[in-house]
Amino acid sequence: MERHTYLTLTAPEEARERWFSRIRELCAEPEEEFAPLSEALHRVISRPVEARRSSPAFHGAAMDGIAVKAERTFSASLRSPLRLTLNSDAFWINTGHPLPEGTNAVIMVENVNVEDEGQTLVIEKAAFPWQHVRKLGEDMVATEIILAPGTRVGPYEIGALAAAGVTSVPVCRQPRVAIIPSGSEIVALDEIREEDIQAGRALPEFNSHVFSAMIREAGGLADVHPVVPDDRSELKAALLAAVEKGADLVVLNAGSSAGSHDYSAQVIGELGEVLVHGIAVMPGKPAALGIIHAGERKVPVIGTPGYPVSAIVAMEEFVVPLLCLWQKREAPHREKVEALPCNPIPSRPGMEERVRVKLGVVDGRCYAVPLPRGAGTVTSLSRADGIIRIPRDCEGIGAGEAVEAELLRTREQIEGALLAIGSHDNTLDLIDSFLRRTHPRFRLTSAHVGSLGGLLALQRGQCHLAGCHLLDEESGVYNQRAIREQLPDLPVMLVRLVDREQGFILMPGNPCGIRSFDDLARDGVRFINRQRGSGTRVLLDYQLKKRGIPVTRIAGYRDEEYTHMNVAAAVLSGRADVGLGVRSAANALGLDFVPVGVEEYDLVIPRRYRNDERMIALFEVIRSQAFKESVLAMGGYGVDRTGDIVWES
Amino acid sequence: MERHTYLTLTAPEEARERWFSRIRELCAEPEEEFAPLSEALHRVISRPVEARRSSPAFHGAAMDGIAVKAERTFSASLRSPLRLTLNSDAFWINTGHPLPEGTNAVIMVENVNVEDEGQTLVIEKAAFPWQHVRKLGEDMVATEIILAPGTRVGPYEIGALAAAGVTSVPVCRQPRVAIIPSGSEIVALDEIREEDIQAGRALPEFNSHVFSAMIREAGGLADVHPVVPDDRSELKAALLAAVEKGADLVVLNAGSSAGSHDYSAQVIGELGEVLVHGIAVMPGKPAALGIIHAGERKVPVIGTPGYPVSAIVAMEEFVVPLLCLWQKREAPHREKVEALPCNPIPSRPGMEERVRVKLGVVDGRCYAVPLPRGAGTVTSLSRADGIIRIPRDCEGIGAGEAVEAELLRTREQIEGALLAIGSHDNTLDLIDSFLRRTHPRFRLTSAHVGSLGGLLALQRGQCHLAGCHLLDEESGVYNQRAIREQLPDLPVMLVRLVDREQGFILMPGNPCGIRSFDDLARDGVRFINRQRGSGTRVLLDYQLKKRGIPVTRIAGYRDEEYTHMNVAAAVLSGRADVGLGVRSAANALGLDFVPVGVEEYDLVIPRRYRNDERMIALFEVIRSQAFKESVLAMGGYGVDRTGDIVWES
Repeated sequence: MERHTYLTLTAPEEARERWFSRIRELCAEPEEEFAPLSEALHRVISRPVEARRSSPAFHGAAMDGIAVKAERTFSASLRSPLRLTLNSDAFWINTGHPLPEGTNAVIMVENVNVEDEGQTLVIEKAAFPWQHVRKLGEDMVATEIILAPGTRVGPYEIGALAAAGVTSVPVCRQPRVAIIPSGSEIVALDEIREEDIQAGRALPEFNSHVFSAMIREAGGLADVHPVVPDDRSELKAALLAAVEKGADLVVLNAGSSAGSHDYSAQVIGELGEVLVHGIAVMPGKPAALGIIHAGERKVPVIGTPGYPVSAIVAMEEFVVPLLCLWQKREAPHREKVEALPCNPIPSRPGMEERVRVKLGVVDGRCYAVPLPRGAGTVTSLSRADGIIRIPRDCEGIGAGEAVEAELLRTREQIEGALLAIGSHDNTLDLIDSFLRRTHPRFRLTSAHVGSLGGLLALQRGQCHLAGCHLLDEESGVYNQRAIREQLPDLPVMLVRLVDREQGFILMPGNPCGIRSFDDLARDGVRFINRQRGSGTRVLLDYQLKKRGIPVTRIAGYRDEEYTHMNVAAAVLSGRADVGLGVRSAANALGLDFVPVGVEEYDLVIPRRYRNDERMIALFEVIRSQAFKESVLAMGGYGVDRTGDIVWES
Repeated sequence: MERHTYLTLTAPEEARERWFSRIRELCAEPEEEFAPLSEALHRVISRPVEARRSSPAFHGAAMDGIAVKAERTFSASLRSPLRLTLNSDAFWINTGHPLPEGTNAVIMVENVNVEDEGQTLVIEKAAFPWQHVRKLGEDMVATEIILAPGTRVGPYEIGALAAAGVTSVPVCRQPRVAIIPSGSEIVALDEIREEDIQAGRALPEFNSHVFSAMIREAGGLADVHPVVPDDRSELKAALLAAVEKGADLVVLNAGSSAGSHDYSAQVIGELGEVLVHGIAVMPGKPAALGIIHAGERKVPVIGTPGYPVSAIVAMEEFVVPLLCLWQKREAPHREKVEALPCNPIPSRPGMEERVRVKLGVVDGRCYAVPLPRGAGTVTSLSRADGIIRIPRDCEGIGAGEAVEAELLRTREQIEGALLAIGSHDNTLDLIDSFLRRTHPRFRLTSAHVGSLGGLLALQRGQCHLAGCHLLDEESGVYNQRAIREQLPDLPVMLVRLVDREQGFILMPGNPCGIRSFDDLARDGVRFINRQRGSGTRVLLDYQLKKRGIPVTRIAGYRDEEYTHMNVAAAVLSGRADVGLGVRSAANALGLDFVPVGVEEYDLVIPRRYRNDERMIALFEVIRSQAFKESVLAMGGYGVDRTGDIVWES
């Protein structure tokens, strides 16, 4: 632990410019190459492409009919039909076929009368020259430029190339990107052993898979090298080997920070030059940009952070633009919308932040719910609908303050989504899966803030529905009182999603012998709690109060998780002995479960959405037999009233 | 020519619905399959994907530092620092590594002081439980649904799958599409002989290349079969062979109309059923939709028209949506903008028309210039920036009447384009190519309507610049008088693009012995003219008038083409003996050229665009040595004043 240095942060655009200008100065740009037509799709044209032949290559019939010399037909009229002799004055011709010598017009078959067993053809109207003829060069004339450099080849361009007789297409060569995963505890996905993962002895290497996909999308060729341990000489050897193998760019993954085992910047410096170390962006901060000098060859190199979201940001910020620049491609473009954050999004001044958000269009306004911001949370990207960038000079964004969001889905997908904010239940994911199978235009996107948070979001008009299971201590009735209190002016339907068993989630065999809420207060029992405002927390507090157990007696009362699954995970990992949650979560992880009761988990839906087509689809799903069967298969659920409107306010 | 039937036209959406509902009834949908992670990019998830393991799989350090039991540190403060013993109370740990047994928090290395040669670690602040710890399941908990069916796998999803330990990914199987090219005169691109093309004995088969690209983009697998001649039994055998080979869908190209050699519909009917024959859309009308019944297997089939643009419309209308439906993919989406046609676009009522247009944003309004509408003109697609759909119940769109255009380029590309409307010159294509190499954000998109048409478009504010070469008969000065007359209130710059040689374009050896304008009036000399309003036409008329030659003496005076290249093509094909045009066009096709003079070809640019960054880039290009050299290499051009502002109004 002897060494610890701090990073000097550089603004992303400044870092990029510094790296790019040095690359332009020192490094060779991938030259052009020729792709066969069958492999030209999605490549980028490198130089003006000229037609090798004219198309059509001859004057041809544009209709089925007879080919004639127009001037010969000028006397024809309804009153004095003209009689033409087959194969002398007129020739049968099919669409696309060349005009016979001496003809310059086509008369459609519909306008030709046949006499003399076909030897005489009668017309009642003159033809004008070149009528119904596709003239030589009508589409393109040989030597004309048909595609400009920088054109990305799509199907239409394939058609133009084929018509022009261009079967070998000049395209920008695909840059070769070497990916070197590193880290002494890192093991390739196909070599790793499950028990080593569980014991923390090995970490699966998965950034290279993400990088390969990103490079492929940006038109490059990814070459993943074997994992290199945290050893300076081995890292150097790997970098040089990648350069020797012909890489146009090297990506060294992990080790780009300033910790004692982070050698990337040091090794890059020893092999050439480090231009930037540290970027003023979160996630993505610990990235290093440089150039490797290997004799005559100078090759750009990036050291990317190990956390997947940081690594992806570094790739998007530096690698993808470089690949586009080299190939004269337009940088990938994301549509932008104006979004209103449901909650304040704080941000550290001096750092640009990239906040991943769920998005939903509610009553014409697009609302954004921030996802977990940790750099290690790759699902914060795969679950996100959009990304909000908070600029460096900003301390954050207030709730409801309009802000620009980059879309990760199409606008149609965002508009087809029902936004649920509220209590978490695994059946919500199931609704989304069913909805997308039966109604591909629609989806359910859900954010988990607890039952009470859901009602508040409904009250503010920020979501379409809220999952809710709030027990009224006095009446023993679920949800209705909370709705009356929180949504006094909003007419809603209360729709039963499921009855679900709540209970204690325990290690297999229940080693602590937990049977009731009283047991939670025993010495040595560590509890894992849910966050304030969640229905499960309300249930716990109600039971403790009823029993007169002060919360200070519960070890771990302040240790909170946001979902049933994370409570179960906490028990599984030994972080806690017991948590309160639903049976399906215990089942999912093979844990024990002691039920404490059945609760009503409902969807609260404003009545004005009753005829929204997305909501109609949701009702279809939750009322379907297939959905109910899938819910029952998860265990711990009752579906007797699933889909019923149990109450309206 | 015995048989001729008429098509019964069905509206495209009705045709699609009829075909799709019968397909749902009879045909098997491609089932799911499992793709290795490395091949899952851009595939579509077929069923809910659950995490196979939790990620992280253990509680690990989120920072470099020491792992401690938080409760053991509560007494630490600035005033009473706490001394911890290495490897008993505290353990050095690197980011990502698992917490040692009994610890539940990490203190950052920056906040640790080392004493006793490293055996004692001193902290001045308490740690709270789970601080700087990435908890088990923080990203995902085993069994959680991480991807819903219908998700298209991108790099982020690759990350989620890899983190979840899912290396075999359930995806929709890619539909297999057999493409059967047909036509007795059709020859595959790699087998065709150039002399057969020139003689009209063979037509290159290129639709299958376009279809393959479209199918690949829509997630399918294209299998191109050998070309089949126009023979019913051979066509039937080919269709059945494709079904036997396992095709999920068969595309039979060409022969779908109602001519004497159009067997598609008949053959499909004999093998099963024809549901639709004829679509009320232009281009695209003669398409046939049906089902092949081959024993147990029922396979959808489409007969597509032979003209490439018709064929592409049929593919986009029927095949792409079917492939998307099968794979639960969203249909491809094109951004839409409001555009104003520069000219009226007439349309035939009862037919939906798809008009390909050039687009340019001029002073905040997006203008559309229609491209050639022929179904055979594949460059009308590759050159198009957008498509305007004119509905069936509409007789056309007036000039300036706002209409929706689907974009074929990104909005940025459209906004980065300079729109030139006016006279045609090959150097305009060269400007575009140079511009896109040096300024990838910009492009020059040009529409050819002649010099006068360009000035009218400028007057109406529909374009950024106009190519112009209008000789004033009286003064002998180019362009200035026309500008004063046509653009009385618009301050413009006249920028020299090139001096260019105009002259007679002739067959090699000048067989007709054309030397002067007088020769055009000789008996037996066939002329090919340019359209009214073009500078070349003005030049011709001026010379004829000067010589007292009536236009009726010029055979072919009424036979008009729109570009120099098409004039040259008309001469090359023997359609005319002589045309008037620029030397570069004659050079390009290896024709003879007799000069009649040098003219000034200028760009007319409103002064208000002087500081437009696109215009600045254009000036950079045309003033560059490299551009001038390329122009000179084309022959017949002078560049002495290229890029000069020769006059301002």
